[in-house]
Formats: sequence, structure tokens, C-alpha cells
Amino acid sequence: MSIHMHREIDQLKVSLLELCGTVEEQLADAVRAVLDRDPNLADRVERRDEEIDRREIEIEESALKLLALYQPVALDLRFVIAFIKINNDLERIGDLAVNIARKARNLSQFEPLRLPVDIDAMWKNVKAMVRDSVDSLVQTNAELAEEVCRRDEIVDRQKRDCRVTIEKLLATQPEAVQPLLQYLAVSRNLERAADHATNIAEDVIYLVRGRIPRHQAAGNL
Amino acid sequence: MSIHMHREIDQLKVSLLELCGTVEEQLADAVRAVLDRDPNLADRVERRDEEIDRREIEIEESALKLLALYQPVALDLRFVIAFIKINNDLERIGDLAVNIARKARNLSQFEPLRLPVDIDAMWKNVKAMVRDSVDSLVQTNAELAEEVCRRDEIVDRQKRDCRVTIEKLLATQPEAVQPLLQYLAVSRNLERAADHATNIAEDVIYLVRGRIPRHQAAGNL
Repeated sequence: MSIHMHREIDQLKVSLLELCGTVEEQLADAVRAVLDRDPNLADRVERRDEEIDRREIEIEESALKLLALYQPVALDLRFVIAFIKINNDLERIGDLAVNIARKARNLSQFEPLRLPVDIDAMWKNVKAMVRDSVDSLVQTNAELAEEVCRRDEIVDRQKRDCRVTIEKLLATQPEAVQPLLQYLAVSRNLERAADHATNIAEDVIYLVRGRIPRHQAAGNL
Repeated sequence: MSIHMHREIDQLKVSLLELCGTVEEQLADAVRAVLDRDPNLADRVERRDEEIDRREIEIEESALKLLALYQPVALDLRFVIAFIKINNDLERIGDLAVNIARKARNLSQFEPLRLPVDIDAMWKNVKAMVRDSVDSLVQTNAELAEEVCRRDEIVDRQKRDCRVTIEKLLATQPEAVQPLLQYLAVSRNLERAADHATNIAEDVIYLVRGRIPRHQAAGNL
């Protein structure tokens, strides 16, 4: 019985890692759409979100079946519960990619701005955090999860720098307020994605160590 | 056995409603701190967040014990899983109250602005949505949940109006960029709280009806 259950758990892990890969692609495409001011790519990101939503539901239903059929206890039960919550977090990160894609579409309606903020660098950090947070669950690896939590600081700082730069530009180029606020929103959505990755990592740390490393307000805007 | 389990479920419902009440108080205090530019009230909101985090963990642990002890199936199992997810959403709404309190503290460092946006009106809608979404779970009331989803439109519109007003002010009063961006962030955090309430309501609709009414990107900024 236990062998069957663990085979099912392994299957769930594969599905979650696949969903994580799709969400990373969505974020990559959304950021590309912003940098290239590409409304067609933005549209593709929005349309693909429905697939993510559907797969989230499928994964949750499989997890519920596992709970009903095998009635796991102790650490196995905690793992499946953490898994369900993290599946939900991935779907919400997918939603943030759609938000970013919408900003890309809005930006394509304005003249290009020379913007001294590195959205691409911020995105690379966020992508790594999302991937590593889900890996930390699949491997039940608390050290990797703790590392993800530490990296949240870096993304917070990148967002702050972005905000400061944009505030200065708003003061000197008030006519560019609309596109500037779109870029600010992009950096904020990336920072929220990093916060979700941190939430995932904290769930893994609690699963393995039985305590929350920090429990502060996420997503300070 | 079933009587014992349903007694435990009733106890969990009471705890969740109490947590919901505390989160509403946090949001109320945070908004009050913004309107009054009161850093002391902002500090109290930040300190109280630890209590919310602790209670979220206690509620989840009780739910896990229920799962292990009574091994519910079918609708009872789905209810407990929905309950765990919604408990988590409430804790994140509490985090948004802390975000708002931080904006209040920042605002207290600037001269007061005459701001033609009605933060209080937005807050009242959000508070009702949060309360009704948790009530809809406790009552497993899909009609109430559907009503909460419809009200999300109103809050989205209030946030858009706020953004448009602030964009105009940024263009005409660029020297006020810092406090103006703080107010924008407050409206955005309130809109995110409304999105969490909508997520809760959607979980209830799925629980009762077996389908998601809409599955769009939440929290469009």
C-alpha cells in the first residue's frame, strides 16, 4: 500500500514540476513582451493562462484522490497538504505573468522610453527563486528552501531601486507618467512572484523543520 | 464518529471566523492610520501581525489533526482542504494590512495632501467582501460567494479611478511624487485584499458546485 502511495506521490511531483516549467515560460514571455513592447506575445501569455488554471485543478483533484484513497498520516499527510498549497501558489504566479503581459500591451501604445532599470536582471532572479522553491518541495530540501528565502532580499532591493529611479523620472518627466507607472507595476509584479516563491520555501521549511523561519508581511509595495 | 468530527469542524469554523474578525480589525486600523497619518497606529498594526501568523498555524494544525484522526472523504474532505487554503488567504490579507500600515508611516513624514480619492469607501467594500467570503465558506453558501465575486468589479473600478486621479496629479504636481505613490500603493493593497476575498469565494463555489465561475488573473495592477 505504501509503495502504491509513494508511486502516486512521485507522479504528482512530476506534474508539479511540469506546471512550474510552464509558469516560468509564462513569466519569461511576459517579460520579453515588456522589453520588446510586443502586444502579440502579450496576447499569447493571456490565452495560455487558461491551461495553467486547468492543470492546477487536475493536480489538486489528483492530490485529493490520494488523500481519500491512501489516507496518509504524519509527514506524508503534511507533504500532500503543502503540495496542494504550493500548486495554488504556482497558479497565482501564473496570474502575475498575465498582469505583466497586460502592462506590456499598455506599454506598446506609448513611445519607447529609455528606462535605466534592469527588468531582465530582476526577472532572472525571480525565475531562479520560483524554480528552486518548487525543487525544494519535491526534494524536501530545507537548505535549498532557506536559500530561496535569503534571495528574497535581493529582489526586494531591485524593486526598491526601480521605484527610486522611476520616482526621479516622474519628477523630471511628468509627461511620461503613464508608461512609467506601467514599468513600476511590472517590477512590482515580479517582486510579488518572488514573494510567492518565498511563501513556497517557508512551507517547505515548516514541513521539514516544524517552524517558520520568518513570518513577515509579504509583498511590501 | 461523524458527530465528533462535525463538532470539531464547527470548532474550526469558530476559530476561522475569529481570525477573520482580527484581520478586518487590522485592515480597519491600517486604513485609519493612512487617513490620520498616524505612525503609532501603524506600529500597532505591524506588531499585531505576529498574532495572526500564530493563529493561522494553530488553525492549520487543528485541521491536519482532524484529517489524520477522522480521515474524512468526499465533501467533508474537500471542505477541510478548502478551509486550509482559506485560512492561508486570511493570513495573507493580514500581510496586506501591514503593507498599508507601512505606507501610513511613510505618509506621516510628508506634508498632508488634499487627495480626491475615497480610500474609506474602497475600504468599506473590501471589508464586506472579506467578511462575506469567509461567511460563505462557513455556511457553504455558493450564492453569497457568487455575490462576492461580482463585487470585485466595483473595487477594481475604484482602484482604476484612484490610479487615474493620481496620474493626473503626478503630471501636475511632480514634486508630490513620493506621497502620491504611497496612496497609489494603499489602493493597490486594498484591491489585492479584494482579490483574496474573491479567491476565497471561488474556492467555495468550486466546493459547492464543482466548477470555477471565472478563472482570470487576479490583482491586475
